[in-house]
Amino acid sequence: MNVTVNGRTRHYRTVSFDARRNRVLLIEQRLLPHRFKVIATFDFKATALAIRNMIVRGAGAIGATAAYGLAQGARAFKRGNVDAFEAHVNEVFETLKNARPTAVDPVNAMIEVRRKMSAGATAAARQQLALGAAEAFASEDVEHCRDIGRHGVSLIRNGMKILTHCNAGWLAFVDIGSATAPIYAAQEQGKRFHVFCDETRPRCQGASLTAWELAQQGVSHEVIADNAAGHFFQRGEIKMVIVGSDRTLGRTGEVANKIGTYTKAVLAHRHRVPFYVAIPLSTIDWNLKSGADIPIEERDEAEVLGAWGADAKGTRRYVRVANPGSGARNPGFDVTPAELITGIITPIGIFKPHELWDNRHRLGFSGR
Amino acid sequence: MNVTVNGRTRHYRTVSFDARRNRVLLIEQRLLPHRFKVIATFDFKATALAIRNMIVRGAGAIGATAAYGLAQGARAFKRGNVDAFEAHVNEVFETLKNARPTAVDPVNAMIEVRRKMSAGATAAARQQLALGAAEAFASEDVEHCRDIGRHGVSLIRNGMKILTHCNAGWLAFVDIGSATAPIYAAQEQGKRFHVFCDETRPRCQGASLTAWELAQQGVSHEVIADNAAGHFFQRGEIKMVIVGSDRTLGRTGEVANKIGTYTKAVLAHRHRVPFYVAIPLSTIDWNLKSGADIPIEERDEAEVLGAWGADAKGTRRYVRVANPGSGARNPGFDVTPAELITGIITPIGIFKPHELWDNRHRLGFSGR
Repeated sequence: MNVTVNGRTRHYRTVSFDARRNRVLLIEQRLLPHRFKVIATFDFKATALAIRNMIVRGAGAIGATAAYGLAQGARAFKRGNVDAFEAHVNEVFETLKNARPTAVDPVNAMIEVRRKMSAGATAAARQQLALGAAEAFASEDVEHCRDIGRHGVSLIRNGMKILTHCNAGWLAFVDIGSATAPIYAAQEQGKRFHVFCDETRPRCQGASLTAWELAQQGVSHEVIADNAAGHFFQRGEIKMVIVGSDRTLGRTGEVANKIGTYTKAVLAHRHRVPFYVAIPLSTIDWNLKSGADIPIEERDEAEVLGAWGADAKGTRRYVRVANPGSGARNPGFDVTPAELITGIITPIGIFKPHELWDNRHRLGFSGR
Repeated sequence: MNVTVNGRTRHYRTVSFDARRNRVLLIEQRLLPHRFKVIATFDFKATALAIRNMIVRGAGAIGATAAYGLAQGARAFKRGNVDAFEAHVNEVFETLKNARPTAVDPVNAMIEVRRKMSAGATAAARQQLALGAAEAFASEDVEHCRDIGRHGVSLIRNGMKILTHCNAGWLAFVDIGSATAPIYAAQEQGKRFHVFCDETRPRCQGASLTAWELAQQGVSHEVIADNAAGHFFQRGEIKMVIVGSDRTLGRTGEVANKIGTYTKAVLAHRHRVPFYVAIPLSTIDWNLKSGADIPIEERDEAEVLGAWGADAKGTRRYVRVANPGSGARNPGFDVTPAELITGIITPIGIFKPHELWDNRHRLGFSGR
């Protein structure tokens, strides 16, 4: 999407590749919203480190970064036969995979790139195929987000106020984003609307990343405390909710997403406000039979006990907010049951949660 | 309640009076939770300033501070007839009233003190009565909180996890608190239980003040992000909610309280978890006919766009969390409808919300 720095507006992807110099280019997300900077990783190990250190985060974005990282590593192979090349690619694969061991997107992305590479007979042929495969993966991510926007845009009516939670924006993908896709599409169509960004404690991705994204695109928005959404529902100000998802159960329509999503779904349901989840097909889990089986990561309590931000001089700092002697519980995700979800916006259309299973073959289910 | 500083435990009230030196003693709440300090105000103007600057906050606490401030001012009157004395007391009254112009508790407290003072025939007699009246007001505040605890304690069962929101603790009163009263009473009875403190963005009174209070009393507790309560309800961990109230409508049973209270009530209702509101009688509004008529203050957006806390060196700092170009909405309160409230714990017993009006004369309603 467009980013304006020092008055100059340019289009950026979250992740891209400089083929000439064999570099992966990444928006340094840890500096946002206070500073915009694109960094370059010169080899696959640096790319893995960027994933590990969360310079890049978000399922789609780390998938594409791993795809590019694999191509980058493959292209750095100097000379040798196919076996030596494949041994080298294995090492690249493992290094990138281990950067975020619990994430599935990097692995799926790299498997796809390797599948396409295997059509080459020689190391040199495979090297050439690698870059094309990675580029295809990234472009497909963008296309899928664009398709989500195409299907979701009609839900946004003029004058609407929309609530979103956390960041399922273009920073979490290669471009456009999932929950933000209908928003950007509506903006392109000249619709007038307003977005409430839940600040999304404890990590505040809504206040920092989503608000930054929307500001860059000139989308009318305001940040609200997570506590305030209920009041705006009561006053009839919120007409729609759109969120992303970390994992959507294809069998039940349950949605795991950033902590607090469930609460917003309960409020929307009480106030008869439609609640939509926008997802690329890669987040659908066809195996799990119940949301209760989704492991809920408990994260570092320091996230809850304080906050990261910029001080008056612009220096990034952590401040301790809570009583120094007190501990915290910090579940990272919650699970929203299907009954609270109005629709799931996918690249191939909008489905009721229980319709996912009936449409499983169109939605990418490869089992029986 | 007890406070331990440098290993020494002592009992403190939030507000008290040093009659010998005619000083009001206040816990400096702006330094909490990072530092505990009691400050003394040497004249009524300094006391008014302490209210204005929020060294002391909370309905009961500022009521008692104003009562003491009035006595302090009256006692500083040097020599003269009753008329000169009353003119002086008028000035004291207005100064203290104007420190927090929208608050009703200081005014009600001072009217009560002046009523008792008027029994004296001379300035000297009224000066003597002033102190007794202020002390009586403060002691009554403590008694009422103790009574809330007495009635509410039976709701707390062994092994329970209790959710509370914001701070309706002893720091908001002279001692004991309202929402915390059943908790402290249960602690005294040796019951085992655990409290989840909502951090209560944007001002984080739960993470800072309530967590500090509970830690000082040795009550088992943890801070959670406001977003996390829904997850703990889903998992069945929360068995009861107790909150305070800024204004409770005697005619409808609706409760205005810190932003986010409504959301917790909606969640509790969905999960069939009892939701209690603990209040002193002074917060009951017998006039308003609908919660929709309660004015909802919109506060400074800086509260939502950042956070106050202590940095690594212990220095109190504000950090900007949100995107620098973005604005915020910041409603300070919301209104919880009666249907979501299991019971209202008062100093004279626990009532269903709709029972307040039927019991209005016992609950202090003085109209017809």
